[in-house]
Amino acid sequence: MVLLEFSMSPLGKGESVSPYVARSLEIIEASGLDYQMHAMGTIIEGELPDVLRVMQQCLEEMSVDCPRITCSAKLDYREGYRGRLASKVRSVEEKLGRPVKK
Amino acid sequence: MVLLEFSMSPLGKGESVSPYVARSLEIIEASGLDYQMHAMGTIIEGELPDVLRVMQQCLEEMSVDCPRITCSAKLDYREGYRGRLASKVRSVEEKLGRPVKK
Amino acid sequence: MVLLEFSMSPLGKGESVSPYVARSLEIIEASGLDYQMHAMGTIIEGELPDVLRVMQQCLEEMSVDCPRITCSAKLDYREGYRGRLASKVRSVEEKLGRPVKK
Amino acid sequence: MVLLEFSMSPLGKGESVSPYVARSLEIIEASGLDYQMHAMGTIIEGELPDVLRVMQQCLEEMSVDCPRITCSAKLDYREGYRGRLASKVRSVEEKLGRPVKK
Repeated sequence: MVLLEFSMSPLGKGESVSPYVARSLEIIEASGLDYQMHAMGTIIEGELPDVLRVMQQCLEEMSVDCPRITCSAKLDYREGYRGRLASKVRSVEEKLGRPVKK
Repeated sequence: MVLLEFSMSPLGKGESVSPYVARSLEIIEASGLDYQMHAMGTIIEGELPDVLRVMQQCLEEMSVDCPRITCSAKLDYREGYRGRLASKVRSVEEKLGRPVKK
Repeated sequence: MVLLEFSMSPLGKGESVSPYVARSLEIIEASGLDYQMHAMGTIIEGELPDVLRVMQQCLEEMSVDCPRITCSAKLDYREGYRGRLASKVRSVEEKLGRPVKK
Repeated sequence: MVLLEFSMSPLGKGESVSPYVARSLEIIEASGLDYQMHAMGTIIEGELPDVLRVMQQCLEEMSVDCPRITCSAKLDYREGYRGRLASKVRSVEEKLGRPVKK
């Protein structure tokens, strides 16, 4: 299982890109994978081929009317762990002995 | 105002790095900047010099006992906007007409 | 065609990770895609499914003996352009009117 | 010493952003830090405060006429090492026993 965080922005489509991001969210929700959206991207959890396929679909969907797209991504692979959307933050909270803003 | 998302991991300190991440959270909280932690990093909001200084302090603190560190970061600068830790996600929800997981 | 830049590091395998990176280079070279390696990662150019497949293979190969891996990636999609490993830098040089270090 | 790789793109300024990137190169060259430009960004080597200051200057310069900017960055800190713009790639070549494309 991996966590994949990604965000993509079209260039040349104005400063406000949330209408394009909304389409990605529809694809992510339809995938059935667990996810979390935050201000700088979306994190999905699943097997490696599955999360990469979802990212590819989001990019292909955006490319329909966006001729240039920049996308950044980060993967965290850890053998034998799942449910890390929540557990990674919890682990830091345990070390601190208090909750953080999340 | 900018949003700065970053995460850093020591190399050669084992697979579990949350004790090191916890120290960064202490620095971030002490900075007084608004922030949000998620499974793949932490987002802070502030003026550009302030957010970069906090990231630098986190890296310097980790380097005290970690001889090698990899750090990835993403900045989103938008003139005249603040409070975007919450408003960016809200903007996507408005386009979708429903809440997302956050 | 897209440019995909990525780098991956195992956690808990010591400070020096070049033996693991070398394996990725073998996969990239075997793919037949054009590529360029630099100090912070490797850039490959190809169709979206192809470049993602190569990145997936590199990660799978590293996961054979690395239980935790962090990977960062960046994609630049631009419709109708190819050969951008060289042309993007050249375009900046033309604006500057002089060569840059590359 | 650290290696800092970064790239920044204005949103809403069209698909071609090399005129804006060229300005960053002028700042980087004026800094006197060693650097390398590639198709997905620029890598600079120096002490942590110095490389972050250069990145900040590039962003401030772009923000003069770009109201929205997205920037991604990656840092590689390694105590006691310098000259890594060249040596990191060379280290992989030594493991492979042959040169790579760079």
